[in-house]
Amino acid sequence: MTIYDEKLDKNPANFHPLTPLSFLQRSARVFPNKTAVIHGDMTITYRDLYSRCRRLGSALNRRGIGVGDTVAVMCPNTPAMLELHYGVPMCGAVLNAMNYRLDPATIAFILEHGEAKILFTDREFSDTIKEALKLFGSDITVIDIDDPLGEGGEFLGEKEYELLLEEGDPEFEWFVPDDEWQAICLNYTSGTTGNPKGVVFHHRGAYINALGNSLVFQLDSSSIYLWTLPMFHCNGWTFTWGVTAVSGTHVCLRGVDPKFIFPSIRDNRVTHMCGAPIVLNMLVHAPKELKVQFEQTVEVATGGAAPPSQVITEMEKMGFRVTHLYGLTETYGPATVCAWQSEWDSHDLERRAQLMARQGVHYPTLEEVAVIDPQTMQAVPHDGETMGELMVRGNTVMRGYLKNSQASQEAFAGGWYHTGDLGVTHADGYIEVRDRSKDIIISGGENISSLEVEDVLYRHPGIMEAAVVAKPDEKWGETPCAFISPAPGHEEQLTKEDVISWCRENLASYKVPSSVVFGLLPKTSTGKIQKFVLREKVKSL
Amino acid sequence: MTIYDEKLDKNPANFHPLTPLSFLQRSARVFPNKTAVIHGDMTITYRDLYSRCRRLGSALNRRGIGVGDTVAVMCPNTPAMLELHYGVPMCGAVLNAMNYRLDPATIAFILEHGEAKILFTDREFSDTIKEALKLFGSDITVIDIDDPLGEGGEFLGEKEYELLLEEGDPEFEWFVPDDEWQAICLNYTSGTTGNPKGVVFHHRGAYINALGNSLVFQLDSSSIYLWTLPMFHCNGWTFTWGVTAVSGTHVCLRGVDPKFIFPSIRDNRVTHMCGAPIVLNMLVHAPKELKVQFEQTVEVATGGAAPPSQVITEMEKMGFRVTHLYGLTETYGPATVCAWQSEWDSHDLERRAQLMARQGVHYPTLEEVAVIDPQTMQAVPHDGETMGELMVRGNTVMRGYLKNSQASQEAFAGGWYHTGDLGVTHADGYIEVRDRSKDIIISGGENISSLEVEDVLYRHPGIMEAAVVAKPDEKWGETPCAFISPAPGHEEQLTKEDVISWCRENLASYKVPSSVVFGLLPKTSTGKIQKFVLREKVKSL
Repeated sequence: MTIYDEKLDKNPANFHPLTPLSFLQRSARVFPNKTAVIHGDMTITYRDLYSRCRRLGSALNRRGIGVGDTVAVMCPNTPAMLELHYGVPMCGAVLNAMNYRLDPATIAFILEHGEAKILFTDREFSDTIKEALKLFGSDITVIDIDDPLGEGGEFLGEKEYELLLEEGDPEFEWFVPDDEWQAICLNYTSGTTGNPKGVVFHHRGAYINALGNSLVFQLDSSSIYLWTLPMFHCNGWTFTWGVTAVSGTHVCLRGVDPKFIFPSIRDNRVTHMCGAPIVLNMLVHAPKELKVQFEQTVEVATGGAAPPSQVITEMEKMGFRVTHLYGLTETYGPATVCAWQSEWDSHDLERRAQLMARQGVHYPTLEEVAVIDPQTMQAVPHDGETMGELMVRGNTVMRGYLKNSQASQEAFAGGWYHTGDLGVTHADGYIEVRDRSKDIIISGGENISSLEVEDVLYRHPGIMEAAVVAKPDEKWGETPCAFISPAPGHEEQLTKEDVISWCRENLASYKVPSSVVFGLLPKTSTGKIQKFVLREKVKSL
Repeated sequence: MTIYDEKLDKNPANFHPLTPLSFLQRSARVFPNKTAVIHGDMTITYRDLYSRCRRLGSALNRRGIGVGDTVAVMCPNTPAMLELHYGVPMCGAVLNAMNYRLDPATIAFILEHGEAKILFTDREFSDTIKEALKLFGSDITVIDIDDPLGEGGEFLGEKEYELLLEEGDPEFEWFVPDDEWQAICLNYTSGTTGNPKGVVFHHRGAYINALGNSLVFQLDSSSIYLWTLPMFHCNGWTFTWGVTAVSGTHVCLRGVDPKFIFPSIRDNRVTHMCGAPIVLNMLVHAPKELKVQFEQTVEVATGGAAPPSQVITEMEKMGFRVTHLYGLTETYGPATVCAWQSEWDSHDLERRAQLMARQGVHYPTLEEVAVIDPQTMQAVPHDGETMGELMVRGNTVMRGYLKNSQASQEAFAGGWYHTGDLGVTHADGYIEVRDRSKDIIISGGENISSLEVEDVLYRHPGIMEAAVVAKPDEKWGETPCAFISPAPGHEEQLTKEDVISWCRENLASYKVPSSVVFGLLPKTSTGKIQKFVLREKVKSL
C-alpha cells in the first residue's frame, strides 16, 4: 500500500470505458453540418448521421435487442452499413457483418453459430439470403435495406430499414458499455477449409485500432475516405470508426470497379482509400479510358497479402501513394505498417517498392510483432533468412473465437497470437511474410517461397495475376507450378516459354516453375486466391 | 451470462496495460538510427535514448526505487529531463517534475508532501535547491545533472546523472504496470494562493492524451518539435510522450528566449512547438534583428489562457500557424482545441483570430466538455451569453489530488471535473472562457469580463501585456482597473489617455477602465499574471 493507492479511484469524471461510439458523438457536436457520408448524389451530415444511428439503436432497444445479442448484416458499403457500426453497439448489441460473397450454407451456419436475433439485408442479396434462411430454419427478424443505388432483388423481411429508423428516438441515450472489454463485433474468418471461426472484437480494441489507423494513415478532418475496402472486412479494418474519429468524410461505394472508383476520386476529391492488392491490380490494369485524371495525391493503404512491387510502382505513377499494411481479422485488420524511412527517398522507384512490399513494423497502438520459432517461442535472428511464424500481442488482438475455446487457446499459445503466416525479420527489424506455412514448396530439400516466385511473375507486364503451388515430383519431392491469369490484351501473346524464360532471368534455377497453366484463378469470397483448389488441380496435371 | 461472456478473457496476447513507455520501445525498434533528441550540437538516436532510459530505470531499480515511490526533478528542457519521463516509470516509480521557478519553501513543501525518495537537480538551480534541502531537513538522495549547456551553479549530491546511468543495465527489462491506472506522474499545481496540490496522472491517461495530441496537432515521424513549453508543465502537456509516439524529433531548449528560438526553428527545421500566450507575445515583440526568417510553416499550440487575437494575427504574419488549446494540470494539459471549421477560411485574419481565441471543443480522446451551472449541474444554453463553469469528464482527467481527498471530492462533485473557469457556450457549441470565477468584475450590477477588457487592450499596438482587476468603488461597487506593460519602444509614448480612449472606441462605456497603471506585471512561476497581487495593489491606489 503506497500513498498512490489511497482515495485516487475511478469515478465518472475521470474514467470512461473506451468505445468508438464516443467518436461519432464528438463529430456530431463539433462538426454538425459537415458532410459525414457521401453516397452517389446523397449526403448525410454528422448531425444527421448521429441521430440516424441513435434512432437505430433505440429501435433495436425497443425490440428487446441488447447486451450480448448478435445483429447480423449482409450489405455492401452503403450508409446503412456504416450506421449499423454505430447503431448496433449503441443498444449494447454485437454487430456481425457478413461477407456478401458467401454461399447460403455458410451464411446459415454463421447465423446459427452467432445466434443472430435480427438480420439486416440489402435487397441485392435477396436470392442468397432467401436460400440461407431456408437452410437456417429458425425464426429471425429480417429487415430489408432498400438502397436507392442498389439494383434488383426483392424484399424478404417484415420491414424496410428506413421505416425501422422511424420506430427509434433520435435523442436515444445510448448504452455506454459497462466494461470496455464488452463485445462490439463478431467477424467470421473466411478460412479456406473447414467452418469459419467467429472472431470477437471489444470496444477497447475498436477504439484503439481506430486511433492507430488515424495516426498511421495521417487522417484529419479534411480527409475524404473512399470505401473501396468492404466494411464487412474486419469492420473495414476499423476505418468505419477511424474516419469518424477525425471527423472525416466517408464516401460509400457499392461496387469495387474502376469505372466508379476513378470518377469518385476526382469528383469527391478523395484523399484516402484502402483495398486488397487485387483492387490496386484492378486500377493498374483498367482500360485507359476509365483512368480519369485527378489532381490530388491519393493515399492508398493495402494489405492482406504483399502487393507485388510492380503494382506499387504503377500505382505511384498514376498519382497514388501506397502504404503497405498487414493484419488479419484476428488483429482488427492492420497490425503492422511498412513505416517509411527517410533514407529510402534516395532509392529508385523499383527498390523503394521492394522495401515497401515488406510487412514492416508493429502499429504504434499494438505492443509487438515478431517472427518466432513456434517450437522454442524464441524470436528468429534478424538475418532476412531464418523463417519463423509471425506473432503479435497487444490491445488490438481479438478476445478469441466465439464458442471455440480450443481454437482460441491454440491461437494464443505462449502469450502471443499465432498468425499462421511464415516470414523473416530483416536486419533493419522489418518483418516480411514469406508464406503461409502450407504454401512453402520443398524442392530437393530446399525451401522455395511461393511468394518470391509470384513476385517475379507479377513484374512481367503480360501477367495480371499469378499463384504458385507445389506440384508433387518423383525426383525433387515438389516443384513449383505457376497458375497465371494474363493481363488484358496479352491473352493471345503470352506463352509458357515467355514465362519460364522470365523466371530464369530473375530467379535461382531451382525456383523456376516446372509447369505453367493459364486461366482465371479461383478465389475465396474475400478475393484471396484459393490455393487449395489449385493444389487439387495440380494433381491431375 | 451471454455467449460473449464465455472463455473470451484477457490474456498476455490480447491485453496490455496502456503505457506511454510502449511508444519509446517501438520508436527504438522502428527508427533506431533516427535523431530522437537534439540539444545544441548534440544528438541522441532513438536506439540510444531507449538504452539510456533503460539504464536509468535499472539504476533506480537497483537502488530500491519502485512502484509507488516518488522521484523528484528540478530541470529545464534538457535530454535528462526527457529521459526521466521514461526511466522513472520504467522502474515503476512516479515522476514529480517541479517548476524550476518555485521558491525554496514551496520546493521543500513539495518534497515532503510527495515523499520523494530521490531528487534529480540541474546545476543551474543549485542555489534554490540548496535552500530547499535545508528547509526540507529529511534525508534524500540527490543526483546532479551536469548539462554541458547549463551555466553556473554547483554540485550538491552524491553523484552526477551520467555516472548514475552507468550503474544501470541498458537491456533492463522494464516494469510494465500491473494496472494502467498505476500512477506515472505527480504534478503540483501552482495555485495563486495556498499550498500547491499534487495532481496524480496514470499510465492510461498519459498514453491516451499523448495520442490525442498527436492527432490534434497532426504529428508524424517527420515532425520536429521544439521544446518552448517547460516539460515540468503537466509533463509538457504530455508531448514528452506524444512526440515519441510518432517517432518525431525532440529539440531541447534550456531557456525560452527569442534569441534561441528563432535560430533553432531555422537550423533544426522545426515543425511544431507549444507555449503559453506569453511565449507568443515574446516572439511577436522580439526585436527585428532576432526575427530570423524560416521557410516552413511552424505549427504552434498555445493555451493556458486565451491568446489575444492581435497576437494570433501577428504570429500568422511571421509564418506560424496557431492552434488554440485549453486545459489544466488536472487534465494532463490540453483538454479542448479550437477545432478549425472550413467555413472560417473565408473570414479576414482579424475575424479568424477572434473565432480561434475561443477554447473550442473537447479533444477526440476526452469524453466531454460543457459549461455547466454548478448549482443545478445543467448545461447552460448555447447562447454565447449565459455564464457557467467549464467542466470536463473523460480518461484524461487526473486520478485526484495526492493525500487530499477533500479537494478531490470537491473537484469531482456531480461526476464532472470542475475547472473553476467561467465561460459560455456559443451557438456553434464552442466554449469560451470568460474568466476565473474570482476575476469577474461586478460594476453597477453588471458583470464585466476582465478577459474581454484585456483582449481589447492587447490589440493596442503599444501594449505588450495587460491585466484588469476589480477596483472597489463607492458608487458602482467595483470598476475595472487596468495594469499595463507597454511594448518595447512605447514606454515613453503611451499615455493613460491613449489607453482610455482606445477602450472607449472598442468597449461598452461601463467596461472602460476607471484607472490605468503602467509597469511590469507580477507573475507566478509558470508565467501566469498574479491578479491577487494586483488586487492588493489596487486597494492602495
